[in-house]
Amino acid sequence: MNYIHKNENAIYYECGYSCDNAIYLSLGKDSFFFTDSRYEIEANEKVLNSQVIIASNLLDEAISTLKKYHISKITLDSNEWSMKEYLVFKDILPKVDTKERLSQKKRMVKSDDEIKLLKQAVHLGAKGFDKFAKYLSKKGIGKTEKYLSFKNLSYMTNKLELGTSFDAIVAINANSAKPHAHPSELKLQEKDLLLVDAGIKYKRYCSDRTRVCDIHGDIHFKDEQKFKNKNHQKIYDIVRKSHDEAIKQARVGMKASDIDTIARKVIEKSAYGKYFVHSTGHGVGLDIHELPFISSKSSDIIENNMVFTIEPGIYIPNEFGVRFENMVVMSDDRVSIL
Amino acid sequence: MNYIHKNENAIYYECGYSCDNAIYLSLGKDSFFFTDSRYEIEANEKVLNSQVIIASNLLDEAISTLKKYHISKITLDSNEWSMKEYLVFKDILPKVDTKERLSQKKRMVKSDDEIKLLKQAVHLGAKGFDKFAKYLSKKGIGKTEKYLSFKNLSYMTNKLELGTSFDAIVAINANSAKPHAHPSELKLQEKDLLLVDAGIKYKRYCSDRTRVCDIHGDIHFKDEQKFKNKNHQKIYDIVRKSHDEAIKQARVGMKASDIDTIARKVIEKSAYGKYFVHSTGHGVGLDIHELPFISSKSSDIIENNMVFTIEPGIYIPNEFGVRFENMVVMSDDRVSIL
Repeated sequence: MNYIHKNENAIYYECGYSCDNAIYLSLGKDSFFFTDSRYEIEANEKVLNSQVIIASNLLDEAISTLKKYHISKITLDSNEWSMKEYLVFKDILPKVDTKERLSQKKRMVKSDDEIKLLKQAVHLGAKGFDKFAKYLSKKGIGKTEKYLSFKNLSYMTNKLELGTSFDAIVAINANSAKPHAHPSELKLQEKDLLLVDAGIKYKRYCSDRTRVCDIHGDIHFKDEQKFKNKNHQKIYDIVRKSHDEAIKQARVGMKASDIDTIARKVIEKSAYGKYFVHSTGHGVGLDIHELPFISSKSSDIIENNMVFTIEPGIYIPNEFGVRFENMVVMSDDRVSIL
Repeated sequence: MNYIHKNENAIYYECGYSCDNAIYLSLGKDSFFFTDSRYEIEANEKVLNSQVIIASNLLDEAISTLKKYHISKITLDSNEWSMKEYLVFKDILPKVDTKERLSQKKRMVKSDDEIKLLKQAVHLGAKGFDKFAKYLSKKGIGKTEKYLSFKNLSYMTNKLELGTSFDAIVAINANSAKPHAHPSELKLQEKDLLLVDAGIKYKRYCSDRTRVCDIHGDIHFKDEQKFKNKNHQKIYDIVRKSHDEAIKQARVGMKASDIDTIARKVIEKSAYGKYFVHSTGHGVGLDIHELPFISSKSSDIIENNMVFTIEPGIYIPNEFGVRFENMVVMSDDRVSIL
């Protein structure tokens, strides 16, 4: 199969290097890495098992190579390419074959080395949460969500030494009930519930974690939370039970959708089913969201060395939301938290 | 003309609101804003002159609307849509017509209100530079590029109260010679040359500014810089002259490429032409890079109320680079710095 990638992570996975302007082309025995002159030195140092070609118009250059090799059919993921680029391909090639999630399917089962990197990413992410908690305990009260988001970024990334895997959510009370809240001018007060969803990148691999905590006394993101507000505690306990059941029951060979069902049933039994408005989890690796999808619609089958999140949630509109999220790895037929 | 947009800024320009999951469809007298339930309340409050339609699959819903209105031809910008989305359109519609930069062409000449917003963005951006300079004077020496990038973000955005219009460049000496440098572990020392390219967003409108400064004594980003290193001073003076000439000579009716030529000639005359490796400028508005393009290949014609950057540069590989960038507006047949 001759195939071509434009997505940065897909390319990195193929040849060990990538940058924000690159194309990777695999033609059986021969493969090619196209980039522009800004990345020439780095590409020549780091690209593995592929010929590095420097060009100003990468797509034109890739098409020249296709012509030179008399290629008539190329496989690609239609999500990676713009309509504009497709129209260029279509003019030249007799056949453009689409394979959805071409790269993510290869990357779904992680190597042991990848799991080590993901473990380290999770470890560094958790350290960021702990440092942010210490800050909250000392100085958090009275600060806005926007300001707290800035401090969260500062602690998670150690002042940008690490990258982030997505824009963190730092949301107070009713804002935590919005699964994709944006930071506001709302100020943190005693007895508030605070939700933090944040992750970092370590050597390109992502971490992803969500905790909620009660704002009183010594603020921390440990699994055991004691809330002053009994309703907060009740919802928190249901969400954790949902999370724990999914982890306890997940097995190799199971449908990913079954894991979603396990987590969802716990919440449905407590009559909050309609407030669990998203899926139970998603794979994590080079992309923050990748296969397998732990959702009711997923057709993925769970295998050893898959890494994904378990993140059930209950969101009571205009009141508060609770999500509890860990990254887990399946190994020896059991999942464990990374 | 019936047309459809997916780009967030293109949509905002049409109806005064947008979000990260929206489609805008214009069918003559009727127009439609499609988004998902997360944005329902905001969209209903803010979208102007369009029917708000809430859906889980926006593209399917937009196509249903096209069918309902018996539309056989739609115009779109092929840069805004993925190949995957295009294949959906193509299956349904007899004719999909591509207009490159459909929205940016409309937005090239700014309204007086937009110029006010851009002026305020530039003002707030410049304030960020001044605060960063004060920090550099007091505490900058010995800090890494990565750490300085973090402090720059902090001052530019007032701790994330404002958004950024792009990832800032904070580059020391040889790194400043790379037009798209990434922050490194290199530490700032006395007599270094520091390049800062940074911008913020004010009510969605972007600012963009580059300065270099000498690291000694009172560090500032004023136009007049006194460098200890004579070669730094020489190159700085040439770049400023190039910038000033472009501003002095730009007129309504001129080709944008002629402005590029004016700036480039100053640098070529001083025999550094081959080190001016990018174009002279670009339009700025809702997008950080939009029309007109001030480059040798541009076919844009300059009109009153266009806003763009003038940013010549000289980059001596492995030594240092100088870029001097301001945003300007053309009004009454003269450009002035915003």
